[in-house]
Amino acid sequence: MREVGIGIAGFGTVGGGVLSILKSHAREIEARLGARIVVRRVAVRDPEKERMVDLDRSLLTVRYQDLVEDPSIQVVVELVGGTTEALELVLAALRAGKHVVTANKALLAFHGEEIFRLAQEKGVDVSYEGAVAGGVPVIRTLREALASDRIQAVFGIVNGTTNYILTSMAEKGEPLDNALAAAQRLGYAEADPTLDVSGGDAAQKLCLLAQLAFGARLAPQDVLTEGILGLLPEDFAWAKEFGYALKLLAVARRTGQGGGASGGLIEARVHPAFIPKDSMLAGVRGAMNAVLLHSEALGPTLLFGQGAGAMPTGSAVVADIIDLSRNLLSGSPGRVPLPPAGSLVQLRPHAEIRTGYYLRFAVKDAPGVLARIAATLAAKGISIAAVQQREHEEAGAPVPLVIVTHQAREADLRAAIREIDQYDTTAAATRFIRIEQV
Amino acid sequence: MREVGIGIAGFGTVGGGVLSILKSHAREIEARLGARIVVRRVAVRDPEKERMVDLDRSLLTVRYQDLVEDPSIQVVVELVGGTTEALELVLAALRAGKHVVTANKALLAFHGEEIFRLAQEKGVDVSYEGAVAGGVPVIRTLREALASDRIQAVFGIVNGTTNYILTSMAEKGEPLDNALAAAQRLGYAEADPTLDVSGGDAAQKLCLLAQLAFGARLAPQDVLTEGILGLLPEDFAWAKEFGYALKLLAVARRTGQGGGASGGLIEARVHPAFIPKDSMLAGVRGAMNAVLLHSEALGPTLLFGQGAGAMPTGSAVVADIIDLSRNLLSGSPGRVPLPPAGSLVQLRPHAEIRTGYYLRFAVKDAPGVLARIAATLAAKGISIAAVQQREHEEAGAPVPLVIVTHQAREADLRAAIREIDQYDTTAAATRFIRIEQV
Repeated sequence: MREVGIGIAGFGTVGGGVLSILKSHAREIEARLGARIVVRRVAVRDPEKERMVDLDRSLLTVRYQDLVEDPSIQVVVELVGGTTEALELVLAALRAGKHVVTANKALLAFHGEEIFRLAQEKGVDVSYEGAVAGGVPVIRTLREALASDRIQAVFGIVNGTTNYILTSMAEKGEPLDNALAAAQRLGYAEADPTLDVSGGDAAQKLCLLAQLAFGARLAPQDVLTEGILGLLPEDFAWAKEFGYALKLLAVARRTGQGGGASGGLIEARVHPAFIPKDSMLAGVRGAMNAVLLHSEALGPTLLFGQGAGAMPTGSAVVADIIDLSRNLLSGSPGRVPLPPAGSLVQLRPHAEIRTGYYLRFAVKDAPGVLARIAATLAAKGISIAAVQQREHEEAGAPVPLVIVTHQAREADLRAAIREIDQYDTTAAATRFIRIEQV
Repeated sequence: MREVGIGIAGFGTVGGGVLSILKSHAREIEARLGARIVVRRVAVRDPEKERMVDLDRSLLTVRYQDLVEDPSIQVVVELVGGTTEALELVLAALRAGKHVVTANKALLAFHGEEIFRLAQEKGVDVSYEGAVAGGVPVIRTLREALASDRIQAVFGIVNGTTNYILTSMAEKGEPLDNALAAAQRLGYAEADPTLDVSGGDAAQKLCLLAQLAFGARLAPQDVLTEGILGLLPEDFAWAKEFGYALKLLAVARRTGQGGGASGGLIEARVHPAFIPKDSMLAGVRGAMNAVLLHSEALGPTLLFGQGAGAMPTGSAVVADIIDLSRNLLSGSPGRVPLPPAGSLVQLRPHAEIRTGYYLRFAVKDAPGVLARIAATLAAKGISIAAVQQREHEEAGAPVPLVIVTHQAREADLRAAIREIDQYDTTAAATRFIRIEQV
């Protein structure tokens, strides 16, 4: 039987998942591929460390270079993480003419250009299904299934940690700190959750999706990125009252010419959003991930599944290994082209974004406060869709006042809030959450 | 620029969609493929008929054979429908060494064995993404993305017509006849809706899914198939009351050894089912389709989108054409193997199926009726999870009585109902609906 030799760098959670799947599903994989996938080397930091998966110790090495130099290795699987060693390894592997599988979103979001260009020069493939939404086949769908179509918009719930936290807040009425602590206890959030709760992780993934969807090279730092800190249990209660769910949403879409396909700027943002409660994305609970694509011919397509973990991400990595093996065995590397290289795309200025808004004010209970806020909004051309005011809970405490607006320009909204936040009747900074009709 | 020559047989709804997408997205497709897709012939029944899409009339022919005999055609796209002419055409095209794209589920459900075997002999590909769930990339996901995994179960809402009808019944409280008539007016249901409302269409699609998921060759007539006729508005009201949605569900799964992967029989069925209201499948409204896969490593994966129509199905067909073109251009036909040929799989006997059940009785208001029903169920080993009885609406009218059971064996349930339906206190046949915890 023919063999495909692979080398794996990194034997952490995902590495363990990959090795475990390769072992337990070996028979099926051989039957489907007509060849055997053989792990020739596994590069690790500490060869003495206890591992969850049995592996012949003689395969272990501490030198990544051993993978690159081994002529019997055709595919290098990068599961090291980070952007330093991982970048060196991937570039060295490509230079040596090896195909690469990685699940490293940060690596591709920050260095994709260099990596894809080198791969194209060398005529080898880079596959990265595991980098976005774990085992959900969104990269494959964008690269292949939608090759016939023109994508208008990508909406994603692509960070399981924050979705777990927001689901707890929505369903249990918990404050964010409690929900985060519970997520950490259960292993859904890391000890330092900054990259997740800041929206940074989702922004990196959005860059990879936007590149495939629009051929648009984006830098994560250019994505409008707002995290979940500052969300209160009452925001979820209000969302429900107005018929919405509250999610951390990643959005990339074409704008201009009525959102048309020909030209127009790209809009890219990650932020909490009210989305209609009947939306499929509203049903994505806990640590699950989903990506909703809107395309010209297909209309909406949603892909949903587990966004992280040894087995889901491991499964995506092994699917990529099988896919590259098929190319190798049939002599067709480069069969599906990598995203085109190119200069950074011009993003629509954040100030020009138009959505509806939910506004949460904290105002002193005085006559004329609502009239003044409404007048300020009107002066900026912002039209009110709904208003709700509750009784204050104790005498003298700020009164919760909530306004939902029709679509407005972000710059106008921000200007109105700046003005309102300076009233002497305003007790605390106004919070706004965008409304996305997705 | 290199060219791939295609011939299209059939210029109806989907054919029009395919030609329209090939034309309007030509530039993007060329850029992604590095080659041009050229339509060389289009076989039609009536060359004089007015068409929605502009096409050079000289390409039209009434002879399918012209596609098969044209040496400049490498891919034949079968959009004729039915299983007679379509089968002849596909077999002739394969014999001539041409690759085939089809969206014809009936053709593959009934003749897939013969078609796939011939394709393998000839070393050519057959692609059929459009045959199940329109543009939703479920065939591709099963053939490629999940090649690394072991699938345990497939749950689908794969018939848009019935899902449209059931959604109307659930949301508007309409009787089935009204909802069906509205679906016909809007073009979601055909004048003769039998194939849809009987569950037959869904059963054909389930056969294609089960074959890819389990390597199990199934015949549509062996699938337990129950349609939506007989469902009443009150069934939807009861579903809601018990925390469920009511959907026409297609189910295929491994059973035995605790649902384990090694061996076990396959269970295949299409029927109305109560599914938990929080399930992603419960959120699939209107004419949309969705397929939920449960696999060992990935866990649940859901794919959702438009299940029918010129553009969605056309988009799937064009994606297949691009995929085959990539194989042709890179010299790798047969890169992803077709489902293995083999004898028909042994299905688990329907009598052995175990689910929970919702039972709707029509009973005369007499003392001891509930006690007697409960005793009969208990005698068959069926355990009751919930009971609800409503006041009768008019004196002497049958009383609505509803029971929800825990998991029970289908044979036992049917035996109990046979007994209960013979009581003199039973006013009409008992209706049961299976409960699927999906």
